[in-house]
Amino acid sequence: MKENAVKTKLKNKQPVFGVLSNSPDPTIAEMCGVFGLDYYMIDSEHSPISPGQALDIVRACELGGITPLARIRSNDPKLILQFIDAGVMGIMMPGIKTAEDLQALVRAVKYPPAGDRGLGFVRMASYLQGPFDQKEYIEFANEQMLVLPQIETKEAVDNLDELLTVPGIDGFVVGPRDLALSLGYIEGPGHEDVKRTIARVVEKINQAGLVAGTTAASGDQAKALIDRGVLFCLNSIAGLLKTSITEFTKKRVI
Amino acid sequence: MKENAVKTKLKNKQPVFGVLSNSPDPTIAEMCGVFGLDYYMIDSEHSPISPGQALDIVRACELGGITPLARIRSNDPKLILQFIDAGVMGIMMPGIKTAEDLQALVRAVKYPPAGDRGLGFVRMASYLQGPFDQKEYIEFANEQMLVLPQIETKEAVDNLDELLTVPGIDGFVVGPRDLALSLGYIEGPGHEDVKRTIARVVEKINQAGLVAGTTAASGDQAKALIDRGVLFCLNSIAGLLKTSITEFTKKRVI
Amino acid sequence: MKENAVKTKLKNKQPVFGVLSNSPDPTIAEMCGVFGLDYYMIDSEHSPISPGQALDIVRACELGGITPLARIRSNDPKLILQFIDAGVMGIMMPGIKTAEDLQALVRAVKYPPAGDRGLGFVRMASYLQGPFDQKEYIEFANEQMLVLPQIETKEAVDNLDELLTVPGIDGFVVGPRDLALSLGYIEGPGHEDVKRTIARVVEKINQAGLVAGTTAASGDQAKALIDRGVLFCLNSIAGLLKTSITEFTKKRVI
Amino acid sequence: MKENAVKTKLKNKQPVFGVLSNSPDPTIAEMCGVFGLDYYMIDSEHSPISPGQALDIVRACELGGITPLARIRSNDPKLILQFIDAGVMGIMMPGIKTAEDLQALVRAVKYPPAGDRGLGFVRMASYLQGPFDQKEYIEFANEQMLVLPQIETKEAVDNLDELLTVPGIDGFVVGPRDLALSLGYIEGPGHEDVKRTIARVVEKINQAGLVAGTTAASGDQAKALIDRGVLFCLNSIAGLLKTSITEFTKKRVI
Amino acid sequence: MKENAVKTKLKNKQPVFGVLSNSPDPTIAEMCGVFGLDYYMIDSEHSPISPGQALDIVRACELGGITPLARIRSNDPKLILQFIDAGVMGIMMPGIKTAEDLQALVRAVKYPPAGDRGLGFVRMASYLQGPFDQKEYIEFANEQMLVLPQIETKEAVDNLDELLTVPGIDGFVVGPRDLALSLGYIEGPGHEDVKRTIARVVEKINQAGLVAGTTAASGDQAKALIDRGVLFCLNSIAGLLKTSITEFTKKRVI
Amino acid sequence: MKENAVKTKLKNKQPVFGVLSNSPDPTIAEMCGVFGLDYYMIDSEHSPISPGQALDIVRACELGGITPLARIRSNDPKLILQFIDAGVMGIMMPGIKTAEDLQALVRAVKYPPAGDRGLGFVRMASYLQGPFDQKEYIEFANEQMLVLPQIETKEAVDNLDELLTVPGIDGFVVGPRDLALSLGYIEGPGHEDVKRTIARVVEKINQAGLVAGTTAASGDQAKALIDRGVLFCLNSIAGLLKTSITEFTKKRVI
Ligand SMILES: [Mg+2]
Ligand SMILES: [Mg+2]
Ligand SMILES: [Mg+2]
Ligand SMILES: [Mg+2]
Ligand SMILES: [Mg+2]
Ligand SMILES: [Mg+2]
Repeated sequence: MKENAVKTKLKNKQPVFGVLSNSPDPTIAEMCGVFGLDYYMIDSEHSPISPGQALDIVRACELGGITPLARIRSNDPKLILQFIDAGVMGIMMPGIKTAEDLQALVRAVKYPPAGDRGLGFVRMASYLQGPFDQKEYIEFANEQMLVLPQIETKEAVDNLDELLTVPGIDGFVVGPRDLALSLGYIEGPGHEDVKRTIARVVEKINQAGLVAGTTAASGDQAKALIDRGVLFCLNSIAGLLKTSITEFTKKRVI
Repeated sequence: MKENAVKTKLKNKQPVFGVLSNSPDPTIAEMCGVFGLDYYMIDSEHSPISPGQALDIVRACELGGITPLARIRSNDPKLILQFIDAGVMGIMMPGIKTAEDLQALVRAVKYPPAGDRGLGFVRMASYLQGPFDQKEYIEFANEQMLVLPQIETKEAVDNLDELLTVPGIDGFVVGPRDLALSLGYIEGPGHEDVKRTIARVVEKINQAGLVAGTTAASGDQAKALIDRGVLFCLNSIAGLLKTSITEFTKKRVI
Repeated sequence: MKENAVKTKLKNKQPVFGVLSNSPDPTIAEMCGVFGLDYYMIDSEHSPISPGQALDIVRACELGGITPLARIRSNDPKLILQFIDAGVMGIMMPGIKTAEDLQALVRAVKYPPAGDRGLGFVRMASYLQGPFDQKEYIEFANEQMLVLPQIETKEAVDNLDELLTVPGIDGFVVGPRDLALSLGYIEGPGHEDVKRTIARVVEKINQAGLVAGTTAASGDQAKALIDRGVLFCLNSIAGLLKTSITEFTKKRVI
Repeated sequence: MKENAVKTKLKNKQPVFGVLSNSPDPTIAEMCGVFGLDYYMIDSEHSPISPGQALDIVRACELGGITPLARIRSNDPKLILQFIDAGVMGIMMPGIKTAEDLQALVRAVKYPPAGDRGLGFVRMASYLQGPFDQKEYIEFANEQMLVLPQIETKEAVDNLDELLTVPGIDGFVVGPRDLALSLGYIEGPGHEDVKRTIARVVEKINQAGLVAGTTAASGDQAKALIDRGVLFCLNSIAGLLKTSITEFTKKRVI
Repeated sequence: MKENAVKTKLKNKQPVFGVLSNSPDPTIAEMCGVFGLDYYMIDSEHSPISPGQALDIVRACELGGITPLARIRSNDPKLILQFIDAGVMGIMMPGIKTAEDLQALVRAVKYPPAGDRGLGFVRMASYLQGPFDQKEYIEFANEQMLVLPQIETKEAVDNLDELLTVPGIDGFVVGPRDLALSLGYIEGPGHEDVKRTIARVVEKINQAGLVAGTTAASGDQAKALIDRGVLFCLNSIAGLLKTSITEFTKKRVI
Repeated sequence: MKENAVKTKLKNKQPVFGVLSNSPDPTIAEMCGVFGLDYYMIDSEHSPISPGQALDIVRACELGGITPLARIRSNDPKLILQFIDAGVMGIMMPGIKTAEDLQALVRAVKYPPAGDRGLGFVRMASYLQGPFDQKEYIEFANEQMLVLPQIETKEAVDNLDELLTVPGIDGFVVGPRDLALSLGYIEGPGHEDVKRTIARVVEKINQAGLVAGTTAASGDQAKALIDRGVLFCLNSIAGLLKTSITEFTKKRVI
């Protein structure tokens, strides 16, 4: 296991740029690293990427110089385990509502005594053949993993003060579309009330000394977010393709 | 089998925009269609996409409204067959050097009497359950398939006049990097001699009433090519990702 | 997202014919559509078809003109999400026993305000690039999805009156073999008591104005069921192959 | 390696019933065995089933009690090798025209001294751990493999007398659709001239003491063929599904 | 479904040797059988092998003469179902702590009346086409399945007396590494206190007339364990490769 | 592209130890590297590993610190291309008989001017984004690739003197089993005549200053070979598993 470069940048208050990916193809991940993204967020909530596919994606990320992360469909400790044993270096968890949810998430991601993660003879642990002994590996792994719950429901916003106090969390990623739905705005996240809520959430996260993240569909959007205190900027494969295909085919429009 | 929208556009002298893809993931193909590309060129020469993977990609293309094509590693009629039986609507063939090569290519792509393609009870033929009877299907398929040999060697350039006369060819796609190597320019296709050669090849193709195509890494490059008579503009997945990742991460540079 | 043709037929009291499939091969699904079935029920309970495989099957169904549905192993909202985000247009849920089970199922399948389904930038939503805006898509999706719990335990039969009142359910599919086991008949569903129970369940479902479905291994069985008020007729891949292989090899027996 | 039950039946002049399959799903193969087919012909000509997929299909065949065979896209000895090393017990080869083609096919399928097949430490050879020593295994394998070239061109019909004399061939499978095309009948194999040609070919094959095979879409067609001297009856997955789906949905038509 | 040879050996107090595998490749499983292991434990806890992959592995095990078992990530009855319907003949369950956990596990593995397992028309049941009728199959399956919970937490050790009394359990497999962590020994299972605890656990299991199992990285370790009453000896793919690669490359060291 | 550590060792006359693998599972490759093998020879002759699977295996090799090589089924330049574009750092080619075969092999593996390999925008070339410009990459790649034809026929032995003079070859790997068959020894490679022939071949290879390689099933066999001038020692996955399973189960025998 190597140092988590994204975690290090975030500690240094540097923005990080990544993509939420619905593609199981490792080559896409490797290219995203070669062309300069910081992290590759395997989507295993709204996309059906399995832990077995994640294993091949993680290898491509390690070679492409991009940090592999995963969004996992539910707060199931053993489903989380299969992704982190494969080498995913952080978890984005949707649907978090309470401090108990968060504590369960932290316990799933960390080895004892910080959590309940089981230890296998796995690649993430270099089959215990690497430079580390078991104790060093466990402490290093517990330190390097990123834990990033999502704020995407009214309940989570209401409980935010308490959520911010749970130990072991690196930050929170706001999901604008589901948050808007949860606040009753079916048309999408464009309503002023949604924007104000998100701004307040980001502010509180920052005041707690944690990382704020959210979605950005372009460099300009990312810039605006960074100016407002967001460090974790999340595009999508669809967003990247839309940007460049629009550029590539512009001659057609003229 | 449906009408080949790319072939129709090319007949109408409209430029078409597509991507040479090294990804076996059907979802990438479907998104490329949703976001506006005209064709998806499965690379089965420099990328190891198999005919079986092509089948799933073709389905995604049909649903995404993008024409599936394939570049195939060699002029092997039965390897070509597996791609076109899966539903690929045209073939880009590398390494063509002689009129004999071209005639063999046409024979592989077309059913009798125009060629030697065998007829199976396959999805491309709608298991012979569709609106067409066998004769109608055969004639329609022979008409709709695109045949696009590559010009990428000195020999092909030398033989161009003869190549242009082979019946059943829709056009030629110039491969600048390999053509430069073949002409002795190991540094890449930037040398003036290479550019002049390519310009002359494009001109001759157009004079013969055929479609000229080549690679373009951006909308500006595509525009410049179209202005010089190129109708078939070919980007790559790497090119698309590089464009948009550079845009997305621009804040980092500042 | 397109109209759910099976839902429309059922609203018009027309019988629908489909297959519970244990095959992950999309081509089998496409052929089932070409040859005239109404729906393809991906079995992800007794067969291990994953959501990622379902994605390719769904595409094949859309092209083959057959409605993709899925039976999912458990009432886990995020596992259901991965299938419906892939494009499955309805869920058959085994093991339902109480109204609470049913309400949870409906919440998993429907977007707010009818349920809790999260909204991603996914293919089912055409990456929000289609003819619909978000509000229209959400309302249309909530309307088109089929929700079909199974009745296969004594508890479900005992609770049937209450189950029939839960909003958002389209009908119920009886599972004769497990129901027989639950009623104590280990030899199979052939006992008169099982048959009487099933007849009563179908009658009650129909009286409640809902769709009744169950398994049928042949056209004759389907006919008999339809005569008794069943509209949703469910064969299996094994059943289809057994029928036709028996027919094909009949010369051997003589 | 076990005895080839299909070869044994054919030696005893018993008809065998099988399916040309375009599905890579091993479960379909296993079910075809359970429900009574004699052989499962993996189509790797008009369908893109790879040798790696064949390996899993072969295992399913061995467990389902059905003999695995393969049609391979071209007479390439090393492509053939990958299928037979996986455990396929016979090869159907399309496009055979001359005695030289046939001799090359036999050399590819048989170990020295009968042919040129290379010997690896592979599963077909039980990793040389089975009851056989190397010599016994080689002799047994050479004996058990089925070699079944296709007759599907005018050239093959013209050369039939010579083809029938090549040692190491078990029989010939007539491909009616391609043969019709080759004879100039684009509408399909229904023309009297095609039928007469096929009848003559079957007669000659039988006179040479070899097995004649061809396609049959139903038990009635198979019966008619068997009555005319055909022993190797070949349906398709599409044919099987069409038969049973038509039967299953018959109530709809009424 | 065939007799479970491992269960039979264990009943006869014979030691069994197997491997916990993190490889989804069926060929590895088949070779492990050919070279003499008794069982192949598919790891679906610390490795991401899916039920769909298990299906192909199970077939390879059946042909290689090795009993397929699976460790499953959590005590989810429907996840267990997908593995046992594929043909896995026993379950090793991690993280068991209470008698309630164990009872739930037994109910998931056994058909009524012993448990709640649902009955499908699946390969494990030979599509109900085999020599058994449904009642015989159910009774045979309930009898042949192995149920092997893991003891790997302090809680499980504390509750051992009660765990030993739950009906339907064949034995317990001690997980030394996680047990050490749970007991507070982060350096690994080498501490005397851990060894003493394991020894006591094994003794109690044997006194209850059940099978004791644990991990062994070599034949010498297995021998030592067998001498202390362990019958179920579990190596890993990593362990096997390390042993033989060390042997194979020994010349390098000299 | 990185330095080829195996080529460097061979230049320094150090023995290298590797495995001919019939497994498509990347994890097996990664573990072989972690436990100390020098190279991983993907078998795509007697095993059906595809170029697409090779891509994932290559990534695992790069991370496991083991050099990825491939044996390819035939001397087809474009099939070779797909493996080397994926990142395989050398080719072992079976069935080589003449100097022309060898020259074709070298041309397939090397870029111009040394050969005819085409240049794509591929991962092996780091998408031309790495530290190298195109010219540097081409020269480095041509230098680092290993070219290892097999000697496994009487013809190759007869032509050896000429084969040894073809430029661009690193060495030759003797295939004892096929060589024995070709020399007329059907029982296997144990005959004295075969041994003498192999010894003579190894001697000649060494005299020509090239690397000699062959198969070895254990460390003792490897040692004996190294003492006789063999540097390239090739075991198999089957060989490794047999060694360690025999060791692990030794208690059973007693
Ligand atoms: Mg554990
Ligand atoms: Mg044919
Ligand atoms: Mg969300
Ligand atoms: Mg050989
Ligand atoms: Mg059921
Ligand atoms: Mg090229």
